[in-house]
Amino acid sequence: MNPPKTDARRHHDPEVRGFASDNYAGAHPEVLAALALANGGHQVAYGEDAYTENLQSVVRSHFGATAEAFPVFNGTGANVVALQAVTDRWGAVICAESAHINVDECGAPERVGGLKLLTVPTPDGKLTPELIDRQAYGWDDEHRAMPQVVSIAQATELGTVYTPDEIRALCEHAHAHGMKVHLDGSRLANAAATLDVPMRTLTNAAGVDILSLGGTKNGALFGEAVVVLNQDAVSHMKHLRKLSMQLASKMRFVSVQLEALLARDLWLRNARRSNEMAQRLAEGVRAVHGVEILYPVQANAVFARLPHDVSERLQKRFRFYFWDEAAGVVRWMCAFDTTEEDVDAFVAALKEEMAR
Amino acid sequence: MNPPKTDARRHHDPEVRGFASDNYAGAHPEVLAALALANGGHQVAYGEDAYTENLQSVVRSHFGATAEAFPVFNGTGANVVALQAVTDRWGAVICAESAHINVDECGAPERVGGLKLLTVPTPDGKLTPELIDRQAYGWDDEHRAMPQVVSIAQATELGTVYTPDEIRALCEHAHAHGMKVHLDGSRLANAAATLDVPMRTLTNAAGVDILSLGGTKNGALFGEAVVVLNQDAVSHMKHLRKLSMQLASKMRFVSVQLEALLARDLWLRNARRSNEMAQRLAEGVRAVHGVEILYPVQANAVFARLPHDVSERLQKRFRFYFWDEAAGVVRWMCAFDTTEEDVDAFVAALKEEMAR
Amino acid sequence: MNPPKTDARRHHDPEVRGFASDNYAGAHPEVLAALALANGGHQVAYGEDAYTENLQSVVRSHFGATAEAFPVFNGTGANVVALQAVTDRWGAVICAESAHINVDECGAPERVGGLKLLTVPTPDGKLTPELIDRQAYGWDDEHRAMPQVVSIAQATELGTVYTPDEIRALCEHAHAHGMKVHLDGSRLANAAATLDVPMRTLTNAAGVDILSLGGTKNGALFGEAVVVLNQDAVSHMKHLRKLSMQLASKMRFVSVQLEALLARDLWLRNARRSNEMAQRLAEGVRAVHGVEILYPVQANAVFARLPHDVSERLQKRFRFYFWDEAAGVVRWMCAFDTTEEDVDAFVAALKEEMAR
Amino acid sequence: MNPPKTDARRHHDPEVRGFASDNYAGAHPEVLAALALANGGHQVAYGEDAYTENLQSVVRSHFGATAEAFPVFNGTGANVVALQAVTDRWGAVICAESAHINVDECGAPERVGGLKLLTVPTPDGKLTPELIDRQAYGWDDEHRAMPQVVSIAQATELGTVYTPDEIRALCEHAHAHGMKVHLDGSRLANAAATLDVPMRTLTNAAGVDILSLGGTKNGALFGEAVVVLNQDAVSHMKHLRKLSMQLASKMRFVSVQLEALLARDLWLRNARRSNEMAQRLAEGVRAVHGVEILYPVQANAVFARLPHDVSERLQKRFRFYFWDEAAGVVRWMCAFDTTEEDVDAFVAALKEEMAR
Repeated sequence: MNPPKTDARRHHDPEVRGFASDNYAGAHPEVLAALALANGGHQVAYGEDAYTENLQSVVRSHFGATAEAFPVFNGTGANVVALQAVTDRWGAVICAESAHINVDECGAPERVGGLKLLTVPTPDGKLTPELIDRQAYGWDDEHRAMPQVVSIAQATELGTVYTPDEIRALCEHAHAHGMKVHLDGSRLANAAATLDVPMRTLTNAAGVDILSLGGTKNGALFGEAVVVLNQDAVSHMKHLRKLSMQLASKMRFVSVQLEALLARDLWLRNARRSNEMAQRLAEGVRAVHGVEILYPVQANAVFARLPHDVSERLQKRFRFYFWDEAAGVVRWMCAFDTTEEDVDAFVAALKEEMAR
Repeated sequence: MNPPKTDARRHHDPEVRGFASDNYAGAHPEVLAALALANGGHQVAYGEDAYTENLQSVVRSHFGATAEAFPVFNGTGANVVALQAVTDRWGAVICAESAHINVDECGAPERVGGLKLLTVPTPDGKLTPELIDRQAYGWDDEHRAMPQVVSIAQATELGTVYTPDEIRALCEHAHAHGMKVHLDGSRLANAAATLDVPMRTLTNAAGVDILSLGGTKNGALFGEAVVVLNQDAVSHMKHLRKLSMQLASKMRFVSVQLEALLARDLWLRNARRSNEMAQRLAEGVRAVHGVEILYPVQANAVFARLPHDVSERLQKRFRFYFWDEAAGVVRWMCAFDTTEEDVDAFVAALKEEMAR
Repeated sequence: MNPPKTDARRHHDPEVRGFASDNYAGAHPEVLAALALANGGHQVAYGEDAYTENLQSVVRSHFGATAEAFPVFNGTGANVVALQAVTDRWGAVICAESAHINVDECGAPERVGGLKLLTVPTPDGKLTPELIDRQAYGWDDEHRAMPQVVSIAQATELGTVYTPDEIRALCEHAHAHGMKVHLDGSRLANAAATLDVPMRTLTNAAGVDILSLGGTKNGALFGEAVVVLNQDAVSHMKHLRKLSMQLASKMRFVSVQLEALLARDLWLRNARRSNEMAQRLAEGVRAVHGVEILYPVQANAVFARLPHDVSERLQKRFRFYFWDEAAGVVRWMCAFDTTEEDVDAFVAALKEEMAR
Repeated sequence: MNPPKTDARRHHDPEVRGFASDNYAGAHPEVLAALALANGGHQVAYGEDAYTENLQSVVRSHFGATAEAFPVFNGTGANVVALQAVTDRWGAVICAESAHINVDECGAPERVGGLKLLTVPTPDGKLTPELIDRQAYGWDDEHRAMPQVVSIAQATELGTVYTPDEIRALCEHAHAHGMKVHLDGSRLANAAATLDVPMRTLTNAAGVDILSLGGTKNGALFGEAVVVLNQDAVSHMKHLRKLSMQLASKMRFVSVQLEALLARDLWLRNARRSNEMAQRLAEGVRAVHGVEILYPVQANAVFARLPHDVSERLQKRFRFYFWDEAAGVVRWMCAFDTTEEDVDAFVAALKEEMAR
């Protein structure tokens, strides 16, 4: 049986891959196939469909009986909905200066959520109880937006990973001060794969109250979920999602993608693959004289410092971004579809350009 | 060739359809097939991909050389981004009391956009210059949020349709007062199909400045676009979309769906089908004594008044919603996948229940 | 002892008064004198001063032991702080279409508070349980901003007054639906004077949860207070006031004005005077053929319909506003400093202009 | 002639002063006297009164022919109105990490203005072109809130003062990048007094586009003004002020206070006095062994490091605040009413407590 014809056409070469972002990758074929399963017939809109219902079971199998998933469109949405859920109008969020919510959302947490971000510089993108304390004060001072939640990313934006103990220490510290903990898990799968632990170990088992669970970077076309882990911490999630413009009408198509990733081990296979490729890449790069790797390579990102002209020549062959152009720092990301050949070709090109 | 296996399973009967909402339908198979075309390889994220670029050509073929599309996730997002684009911080939006932006967005225009809605009761969901004038005043009065845009829906939330002349009159009136015009076109295809005119005739050719172009109800899995028709009216759409949390990372998957709908005539085929089914439904209902049809059936909706107990019995057989339960008014929606058999079975059931 | 010289000069004629607004009046001399009492020395800023502390006793003498006052700058601020205090991020406010919060705040409730206003047309500016019910539904529907508070004005913007029974009925109805009640009391003193009851009878004794207590229109230079009547309904008022930019640094100067008004009977003397002048005005106007008074004159406002050209000529002699210019409706307000001579001269002028 | 009796009573000792805040002081007697001048009769509300009109002349005499003042209630309001005036919805504000708008507003810029603050650590509260550059980038990047304005405080929150050349360099740098400059002048008078230059030299003559001009700390009861210096930079200030809840109904009472300060030299006398007292205090403190003064004393603030127990004992005798309790840093503020005796008594007490 042939697939139905479509009025759309292919406009790109499906064999070209780069190292710019895990968002440059498409969807895993199994995710795409899952959409077809969910199609056809009528399903209740806005989340009362069978796929969203089933997703709850799948999520509970990962995060335990009290977990509840609220599918949303994207990571910005997941984070801003989740943060609003654990703050009052006067609430503030403690996060790393390098946090995606601080530097990459065009001010959406402030603009949409009315949230004040209390940022802390970190050496490696990771908060610690001591770093949290630089902003954790003044709860009774009406002049200060009240620190009500600590937000961490796992894996971090710098490709580093918290151990379960580190997260537990953070959560205990936050809870001791009456604060909740939000985990930005757009790459939680990568962290779990690296540490070889269930995702639960890194979240509710460690004390995390609310989670942004990534799907897009893990192989979905689009789709994330706010996962409530501590039901006492939140209320009216559905209203919050709707007013934040993150409620999908045909939600079955978000939920079935998350099901495809999470029902068995596709989430893990995809994360492992991108992690392994980053390890392979780091290994290859370390053998190239004059290129410095900046942070521990613990997920699917490699940050490196190299001569500016080399980066520019290399960018003509493989797409990637400067992270800090003035400092000559670049970021190389691996995705679930990165191949060993991609990595080896990239390392070879790097060597060539360094040698010129 | 078999499709790839997936860890997701089918949880619903793809043969069951109702009359609750055009959002209950799934995606048109051609749209689903288009996703496969766009998959594979790496494409620049956040809208610099080949599919989004091509979408611009497709959109220009409908709306002319100056039109520019900004794909977003959903209708709420399209409307709130579009309205922010044509208002200042002190701006207000004149709309029908029955407008979706007023009654069905959990306050997102107010909460996210900081917008004041100046509403007007209407007999049929349609504004007129005279109705606009009930709120169009006080531009110099700082105590009043400044009316800066008139927002209309085409087709309206009540299944009625503006003629091109009606839209032109509205736009001239709005422009004469220095106001812009936004058109909520989540069902623009239905209106164009009814009137048998190009979509352009109902939008820029009539003076509309900015458009929310619907994809979801027209057969996409998800995805709409803000289409800027009057470039002088707006700026920095990309920033607005991002801070409104409507920027898709793997945007190719939104754009290719819109391409599948718009590149040739799928948008029109889908709209015609749902319109025709609504006509067939209305015709069938008119033959049932005791059921009153409330508004002109000009798109894919039929509003009817019938005995409350009949509605309740009928809802056990086919899913649909009360529109105004106290008044005994229900809404029946047809979708692109509604069949003649669906309609006939529904009318037969209605007859049976009325006869009991 | 002479008053200190000042670099400021007098720029107006202190003997000229009109009927435009109770905000056109200055401050009662006793209020001005109170400022001198509070001046000198250092007092803790931001509300921990002796005057604000004492104000609590004064407010409790009016509203009972659980009442707590939060002085703010103006009525907009009082209302928006109070409404935020009794709503969640997804909350909506049911109010009369003619409510000041709906028509005269440039969208501040929406823009600053993120609040959705659910408005109801009323014959006389007053809500009833039946009118509330037109908007009181859909608490479980995430598509609808959740009705969480009913806001009424006493006296209303149309110069009418709720009886204690009417307020009690409203409050019982609201509470039965889980909603709170906010009372915009910018002219509460006028209502209490008209009804000859304590302010408490119209507020907490009737079930009101939170109050905007007016000072400015009652004879202060500026200054209002949010008065929390039901402590269970709110939390963190101080933070809300601060983030709403309504926290006065030298708060003693707000509090002492409210003390001057409320400590004994200045509030009542001022309200009575303006009410009596409105009665005298209404009486005089009723004797003028061709002028129609529109609403019961129950506070300090008189609304009248008269020939447009008469209004325009009269406006050249006494300042006042059209309320609905198209309908020929004007509003005449009396203030605490309106004299019998003012009223008589105005009525005489009206007669003259009607006779031309 | 006796002042009118009032129902308010004196609740404090007008002879007690401390060093906690210039907001602890009351109003200058000349300011209080000015209120009486403006009282009586009716004046148009909301800013069309004779006092506000005259204030424009006074402000123009300081800031030149194009300056326009918009009186507001407080500094938070002035800053948030001014910053909204020079930003779009996607705009961000570059400021010092220690800026009042960042640390002392309970998130009002974020919550009310939807503004992202891009902060920079500074050694002394002062920005430089180099420090600005740490955040001045990414104007075309929709993921980043767009830097549209640089906000500086003069004097700074740390009691330091920019020279005119420093401000000019900042402004040129900002303008070269298409950014505007806002100056938080809650203590602008102190800076002008220190530098012995007109306020204009520190603002429009140096390139500042918009100014928050302080009145409260300079001797008013309350009241500040947003002063627009570059008319091309802003529009619709009145709407912005109103929707930000900073529009006073009886505005004459704000304006006449600013007139009293600014019409001749009261602003300067008050600033000089508080500056001189800070110099006297610093001089006295420098003679006390073991107490370290932390920043140049250039306005009316002295920051010092001293043993924690000494601070605590001293606080029992004179009210003041810890600035950084962990580091043993305190802030001592002088006000327009601080006397030489106050300072000498304080220094003597400090000596005593250090000697214990």
